[in-house]
Amino acid sequence: MGGEISARKQILTDFLQDVWTDGQVEKVDHYLADNYSIHNDPGDPWDGQTLSIAGFKDRLIQSRAMAPDQIFDVEKMVEEGNDIAVAWSWSGTHLGDIPGIPATGRNITMTGLTIYSFEGDRLSGHWQIADRLSVFQQLTQGPG
Amino acid sequence: MGGEISARKQILTDFLQDVWTDGQVEKVDHYLADNYSIHNDPGDPWDGQTLSIAGFKDRLIQSRAMAPDQIFDVEKMVEEGNDIAVAWSWSGTHLGDIPGIPATGRNITMTGLTIYSFEGDRLSGHWQIADRLSVFQQLTQGPG
Repeated sequence: MGGEISARKQILTDFLQDVWTDGQVEKVDHYLADNYSIHNDPGDPWDGQTLSIAGFKDRLIQSRAMAPDQIFDVEKMVEEGNDIAVAWSWSGTHLGDIPGIPATGRNITMTGLTIYSFEGDRLSGHWQIADRLSVFQQLTQGPG
Repeated sequence: MGGEISARKQILTDFLQDVWTDGQVEKVDHYLADNYSIHNDPGDPWDGQTLSIAGFKDRLIQSRAMAPDQIFDVEKMVEEGNDIAVAWSWSGTHLGDIPGIPATGRNITMTGLTIYSFEGDRLSGHWQIADRLSVFQQLTQGPG
């Protein structure tokens, strides 16, 4: 690879930092296309939906409530045409209730892979798998 | 995209069909580099290991025993440099015991994402996330 990073890889890196790690809701206007399609994202309540920018902001706020201090780290990116696959690591503190599991205060980690699609310099959708079983195990198994 | 598929995408498509769907163990010799590194694959017993061709065959045989009729379908590929990200769907019948869950005979489905790395025309490793929580839920929740 070397030191070069493509314009779209930089946009995606900034999006993950500004929007998902830092939770800057207003920045969604800057990164998102008018319609954002979630093609596959098992476990995500919005799986299969196409969201407006307002709808995406709602998803962002609700999703981040589980772990408001969450951090996404990029492990690897693979770009072709309008798509970028990104392998990521995630960590955060479980401070918000999720269905069936009230907040535990535990530090949790997870890895995942997402293929993001672009329209011009805007994100228009994704196909994602997160390792939800690891999270489930970290929240439900001892030591407490 | 159009009708064209790159040489390496064709190799990867054939590998998934011949090796993982059809279980042709001897074909591993044809597709794999001498050393195959599993960089990230939570839940896989070989996660973090670098395998010889013989070691990979052992992993293949043990992994396929859970669902010997398993089928991998390619949903999308993204290629750059020596890497191809592939989004996939999987289905199979749970005919082999897994840790903690004896064979149920249930038909199960799963989606996943893998970044495969190439050396020349051979596969040399991967970074993978499978939606294991869906499988866990399909095997442990009713109706039986």
